[in-house]
Amino acid sequence: THNYTAYPMIRQAREMVAKGMLGDIRIVQSEYPQDWLTEDLAATGQKQASWRSDPKQAGAGGALGDIGTHAYNLARFVSGLELDSLSADLDAFVPGRQLDDNVNVMLRFKPVGNKHPAKGMIWASQVAPGHENGLKLRIYGSKGGLEWVQADPNYLWYTPFGQPKQLLTRAGAGAMAVAARVSRVPSGHPEGYLEGFANIYQEAARAIRAARRKGGKPAKDVIFPTIADGVEGMAFIEACVKSSKKNGAWTKL
Amino acid sequence: THNYTAYPMIRQAREMVAKGMLGDIRIVQSEYPQDWLTEDLAATGQKQASWRSDPKQAGAGGALGDIGTHAYNLARFVSGLELDSLSADLDAFVPGRQLDDNVNVMLRFKPVGNKHPAKGMIWASQVAPGHENGLKLRIYGSKGGLEWVQADPNYLWYTPFGQPKQLLTRAGAGAMAVAARVSRVPSGHPEGYLEGFANIYQEAARAIRAARRKGGKPAKDVIFPTIADGVEGMAFIEACVKSSKKNGAWTKL
Amino acid sequence: THNYTAYPMIRQAREMVAKGMLGDIRIVQSEYPQDWLTEDLAATGQKQASWRSDPKQAGAGGALGDIGTHAYNLARFVSGLELDSLSADLDAFVPGRQLDDNVNVMLRFKPVGNKHPAKGMIWASQVAPGHENGLKLRIYGSKGGLEWVQADPNYLWYTPFGQPKQLLTRAGAGAMAVAARVSRVPSGHPEGYLEGFANIYQEAARAIRAARRKGGKPAKDVIFPTIADGVEGMAFIEACVKSSKKNGAWTKL
Amino acid sequence: THNYTAYPMIRQAREMVAKGMLGDIRIVQSEYPQDWLTEDLAATGQKQASWRSDPKQAGAGGALGDIGTHAYNLARFVSGLELDSLSADLDAFVPGRQLDDNVNVMLRFKPVGNKHPAKGMIWASQVAPGHENGLKLRIYGSKGGLEWVQADPNYLWYTPFGQPKQLLTRAGAGAMAVAARVSRVPSGHPEGYLEGFANIYQEAARAIRAARRKGGKPAKDVIFPTIADGVEGMAFIEACVKSSKKNGAWTKL
Repeated sequence: THNYTAYPMIRQAREMVAKGMLGDIRIVQSEYPQDWLTEDLAATGQKQASWRSDPKQAGAGGALGDIGTHAYNLARFVSGLELDSLSADLDAFVPGRQLDDNVNVMLRFKPVGNKHPAKGMIWASQVAPGHENGLKLRIYGSKGGLEWVQADPNYLWYTPFGQPKQLLTRAGAGAMAVAARVSRVPSGHPEGYLEGFANIYQEAARAIRAARRKGGKPAKDVIFPTIADGVEGMAFIEACVKSSKKNGAWTKL
Repeated sequence: THNYTAYPMIRQAREMVAKGMLGDIRIVQSEYPQDWLTEDLAATGQKQASWRSDPKQAGAGGALGDIGTHAYNLARFVSGLELDSLSADLDAFVPGRQLDDNVNVMLRFKPVGNKHPAKGMIWASQVAPGHENGLKLRIYGSKGGLEWVQADPNYLWYTPFGQPKQLLTRAGAGAMAVAARVSRVPSGHPEGYLEGFANIYQEAARAIRAARRKGGKPAKDVIFPTIADGVEGMAFIEACVKSSKKNGAWTKL
Repeated sequence: THNYTAYPMIRQAREMVAKGMLGDIRIVQSEYPQDWLTEDLAATGQKQASWRSDPKQAGAGGALGDIGTHAYNLARFVSGLELDSLSADLDAFVPGRQLDDNVNVMLRFKPVGNKHPAKGMIWASQVAPGHENGLKLRIYGSKGGLEWVQADPNYLWYTPFGQPKQLLTRAGAGAMAVAARVSRVPSGHPEGYLEGFANIYQEAARAIRAARRKGGKPAKDVIFPTIADGVEGMAFIEACVKSSKKNGAWTKL
Repeated sequence: THNYTAYPMIRQAREMVAKGMLGDIRIVQSEYPQDWLTEDLAATGQKQASWRSDPKQAGAGGALGDIGTHAYNLARFVSGLELDSLSADLDAFVPGRQLDDNVNVMLRFKPVGNKHPAKGMIWASQVAPGHENGLKLRIYGSKGGLEWVQADPNYLWYTPFGQPKQLLTRAGAGAMAVAARVSRVPSGHPEGYLEGFANIYQEAARAIRAARRKGGKPAKDVIFPTIADGVEGMAFIEACVKSSKKNGAWTKL
């Protein structure tokens, strides 16, 4: 599931964008490098590696499907932008590997109003030594920029243009209500990966409870991945594979 | 001039690649984000901004020519790879700006021997709030990865695949002779931007002195940018502009 | 409870010291700065602040009892050293505050064999703006040094003397079995504060289960704080208060 | 010479304190760890090590005189506070070493007006593996906190109490005039150790030039170390040695 969308500082980043604190969004840089498939792990029979690198089990995407979709989903979730088209260049660097282990993508988003449409890039890789789960999102607008790193999820770097960079912390000064409502422990004490999942399940539970009430809808701030997100992830994979086969032709989602 | 090539830890990175410490190079990620043109600075008459955003004075590239070329040159310098072709997407986000202020590029390098050719991306931007001179280079091979950031030039992050990440420091443990010969002060005391220029001039002086000797050539470790680097930078700009005009068509250098 | 002792990389740090990877321990620097009592929060009736700053409820130590004890316990836990004596200087900076809000301590440990006894310092503060829960431990020996920060608990910095600094990561390359057994999620995905508590409870449960077996003892690697740790914490508070009242006289624990 | 006082962000830190941006100064934490004397380097005849560890050549202080004085001078320079007394614990960990290689000091400053006097600690060490020239200064007051690290001198961390932490950069947003006047290159391009010396010499030159003018005095913002700073450094060494010999008795400067 898209657990990354439930980290408190990701919720805050989304809110800051939605509130216009970054101005018009211009640039979205999302990446998810790993290194665990730098060598031919599947050849050794390692289970996690084997099914992921087998097209019959993993589908058309390797790194693309496994982590590229997370990089894409997070970019969409925080920016609120819709993708127009993409140009992708997929590679399998390890000899004999059938699915991609490195993914370079350029993004063109749909314009918002009469503004110049935002652009972006996605890099996903399983052959980048030094990266464990290096999901990182950077978003820049006409009024400010944000940076967030999954391995250090309690921090959100925020630069209002023309002012010093600020280190926003979960539950700390500058944390907003949308972050607080999915946050458990005091600032300075780290939350992690499991809390993200817990938040997703909690949000889903809230929605279910609401649905059971006659005509019930969950509160507006209840957010969780839906079937639509899953479908869009599949469309993203498909578009990348198609574009890459056509030598990077710009491909609609 | 390409002063960045004379930072000691860049010299070391190049040497580590050349010695095969990273194995076969697969991925090159180079970026140079800035934020000083986030708003329409030229409209205010600011001199540095004005000539750079005027096609008659700056040529065909804005961010591309000013900083994209540095990102490209550094990638080439350290990786030792030659570019085969590129696909570029240039934008001018600030209304009325005539030259690009954001540059997304995908790279395909020429293969080395019978290896899968390396791939890469370049991002250069002058409208990314939070970045002053954010030149960063990351290179990954079959045996390890490197990361270097211009604003903190005395550090080089090195991960031999399967081992902990190491923080190599200028003149510190792990520093090599190629770094030491362009280094001035003890480890832990920072060197900076000006020393890079000084190194370039010193190397040039060494070459001149050698040339004055009958039949003289500088020692093999004397390195400085030549006219060829400048010409290649122009070719890079031209190829990016051409590719972007052709909707990102892969374009030979 | 001393939950900090159950972070995986703290377990690893302890093991590295025990295995002699740092050589003879010479220096222990432990600190726990916070900033939440920078102003007179108790005067506003804030509950957490009120009982902690009331000697009748909190005992003889303010910052000393609340966080200084954690800094001390962690230093002891990882170094394995026993304290000989300490010299303390306690202050209450906020006017009207009855208990200390800043604690400076110098430490003298008992010698190990015929080695020069280790020395150290503890700084605990609730009036240090910029710190949320800044628990940090640094240990140095004749063969290497370690650094760990509670807010980023998945990292452990390790420098074998004369070699580059290494970034050890939870469940990553270089992680040891003692860390793995209290670790839940893959490397690069962060664990946090709550997992530390969970580990403590799990260890206690293991001990209880073992105790219920006839003559049962838990496995050697089962570690959790005992009543002895609590008593020693009280002794530490008492010694600090006594030393501070005697103008920093060296005081046995 | 006290070159560290001429780093631009140190000048800025001093100005911020002087302007009251930190409120009443309460805590000063200064440290200067190194690791180059972790083993008995002098025994190998290394020149830098030999004279520094010989009491006849180096005087009464080892690490104390070599680097402890810098940690002390910087604390004084930025805080503007005068020292009342100190309690020191000096050690020589390496067998046979005649001068201290590790220095723990607690500080009591003179009160400013009727405020509670500030407290602090200094740690200087030459046997702390992992540190090259780890000079670090942290200052906390009733309104905010500052942190500066010599190895990364272009950054100054500033936390106004109750607000997010800010990363102030040399020549960047938030940089003040006192930093700008001793700064050479644009923000984001690093300056280093040598520029600090250059600034000191330049300031001295300004003072000399002014002195040559009839009745001339340098401008108020011209700052450089004087003989008084040198004398105070010697007094600091003397007081530390005396205190340590008296088992850490509080000793006036």
